Amino acid sequence: MVETISLVDGVVKMLDQTKLPREVVYIDCKDYLMVAKGIKDLWIRGAPAIGIAASMGIAIGANTITASSYDEFMKGLEPIFNTLLETRPTAVNIQWAVERTKKLLDERKDESIDSLKAFLTEEAQRVLTADIEINKTIGKFGAQFIKEGDTVITHCNAGSLATGGYGTATGPIRAAHEQGKNIQVYADETRPVLQGARLTSWELMQDNIPVTLITDNSAGAILRKGEIQLAIVGTDRTVANGDVANKIGTYSLAVLCKENGVPFYVAAPLSSIDFAIPTGDLIPIEERGPEEVTHIFEAHIAPEGVKVRNIAFDVTPAKYITGIITEKGVFKPEDLHKINDPNTDLESIMLKV
Amino acid sequence: MVETISLVDGVVKMLDQTKLPREVVYIDCKDYLMVAKGIKDLWIRGAPAIGIAASMGIAIGANTITASSYDEFMKGLEPIFNTLLETRPTAVNIQWAVERTKKLLDERKDESIDSLKAFLTEEAQRVLTADIEINKTIGKFGAQFIKEGDTVITHCNAGSLATGGYGTATGPIRAAHEQGKNIQVYADETRPVLQGARLTSWELMQDNIPVTLITDNSAGAILRKGEIQLAIVGTDRTVANGDVANKIGTYSLAVLCKENGVPFYVAAPLSSIDFAIPTGDLIPIEERGPEEVTHIFEAHIAPEGVKVRNIAFDVTPAKYITGIITEKGVFKPEDLHKINDPNTDLESIMLKV
Repeated sequence: MVETISLVDGVVKMLDQTKLPREVVYIDCKDYLMVAKGIKDLWIRGAPAIGIAASMGIAIGANTITASSYDEFMKGLEPIFNTLLETRPTAVNIQWAVERTKKLLDERKDESIDSLKAFLTEEAQRVLTADIEINKTIGKFGAQFIKEGDTVITHCNAGSLATGGYGTATGPIRAAHEQGKNIQVYADETRPVLQGARLTSWELMQDNIPVTLITDNSAGAILRKGEIQLAIVGTDRTVANGDVANKIGTYSLAVLCKENGVPFYVAAPLSSIDFAIPTGDLIPIEERGPEEVTHIFEAHIAPEGVKVRNIAFDVTPAKYITGIITEKGVFKPEDLHKINDPNTDLESIMLKV
Repeated sequence: MVETISLVDGVVKMLDQTKLPREVVYIDCKDYLMVAKGIKDLWIRGAPAIGIAASMGIAIGANTITASSYDEFMKGLEPIFNTLLETRPTAVNIQWAVERTKKLLDERKDESIDSLKAFLTEEAQRVLTADIEINKTIGKFGAQFIKEGDTVITHCNAGSLATGGYGTATGPIRAAHEQGKNIQVYADETRPVLQGARLTSWELMQDNIPVTLITDNSAGAILRKGEIQLAIVGTDRTVANGDVANKIGTYSLAVLCKENGVPFYVAAPLSSIDFAIPTGDLIPIEERGPEEVTHIFEAHIAPEGVKVRNIAFDVTPAKYITGIITEKGVFKPEDLHKINDPNTDLESIMLKV
């Protein structure tokens, strides 16, 4: 499995995913500003992966702070937090990394500054390791819905490359494949940034999981033919009522699945669920520059000066979603809020085959 | 208005649309084989335009036939008909051009071969001229559904470039614009061949009609926001029950329109309606090579050797279609078959605002 990101000797090593699948190039980010640039410019993308990158960025940023007190140290962290939070608005995982860091530091107010710095580096490593474990658990829970001979469709890349490893949406696919089930995957190419064509098909081919690349336009026709048994996608932010923000085109795929009676699952680690937001329409949605639409690598594909609208994410209302696959189990979107309640018997609301 | 195709001095001059919008290059097709190559390789595309190209190909092919009788002449035409019919299976317009030619020649059995040859050249010119008139009529009928301030979405290119001129789906858009209505157009880029990005946005910009280019993935999210009032697309073959074959992605757009309560119109000249086929699932659907998906101009965007499925068209069932805009008026898809019945009072089944 290809390594997306690592933190070694105070340097964040990031696979530059904008160059895939043509070139496998790693970039050494020696300060947090370069980590932020890497998130902004999509060297690394995918909600869990940018949560990991943010944790690592915080760790290496913290190392450069000169502070003689806890308060000074926290003050030194502010610009690091803010720079990272400003990179990309839709995925909740950067916010998750910042809030988690604040909480953990608050519990360690009495420790020395050097000890806090060392702790943040260890913590970043733990976030990476834990993420892979979470994805394997999501894989195990999700694989029960993939039967022998099934064809699964996925959108964008919620694979190894979008996470610490193993992937969220690809978790159940990998687990079903490891269980020896003969399965096929359709990968939507996912315009404009082509994460499906460049990343998902590439990483599944690396692991010999049968994958067929299609244009986003083709998914509907293939669903209508009855050739796809289920859809699994990732999420950048899922909210309390079970609405899901994910890569632009996810909503369309969900509507087409519903119209054709095909179950639609969202693989959502708890770090990507924002219980503070009640409904999907309140999720901030990133709009990006026109060049991603008008240019594809070196090819200029549209008229000079054409007006473009480049919305990076959309919101899929809960009613289109069959189940949300978390590391705690699979739940109906309307039951999602219950998993935070300590009185809930998770077993009783878990979706099973 | 840019000229898509013409027939001058026995040469078919074709705009090479694969090079648009980067270069405006015309290719002189001096024999019918080159016309067939032009259709196959998408120098010219769009159901009405390839009907015109086929008529012109037949005319210049006929000129080279040495025959001393009507039967010999018809025998000489057979390979020309077959070569053209084999180029692209989904659009009915090539078949329409061949059947029309056969019928017209059958009515002129007693004329000299030279006279028949001259007739076919004149006929090809008439098909071109008539097509523009038909599109203007479609425009007039369709424009009533576009209100002041409306935003229209279209898919692929059913514009000037897909026809003799004026366009089918762009007919109502052009007519509404000419009527002084302030309207906006969203153009889906239409992967894989990008007719929306390369052709529709380009031709609307040429005529100062406000157009915004979006990825196909974005249409759903924008429809859900309520920012689009209607959709108009073209068709490669519409059949007796009102099902519509059109560029891949049309079905998805129609489902998304229905889900969001947005009317979905199909602009269909009678030449593109195949009353001989009862239902859309019997329409032959072209699948094309993988290169259109894996390569965009000079850019290679997918892993070497990836498996690809490239379905060029899909079928939109009649239930998703609000109205079919023909040169005889606008009809509900379920009423379409009635327009062939001489006893039908067209006025009584026509959709009006």
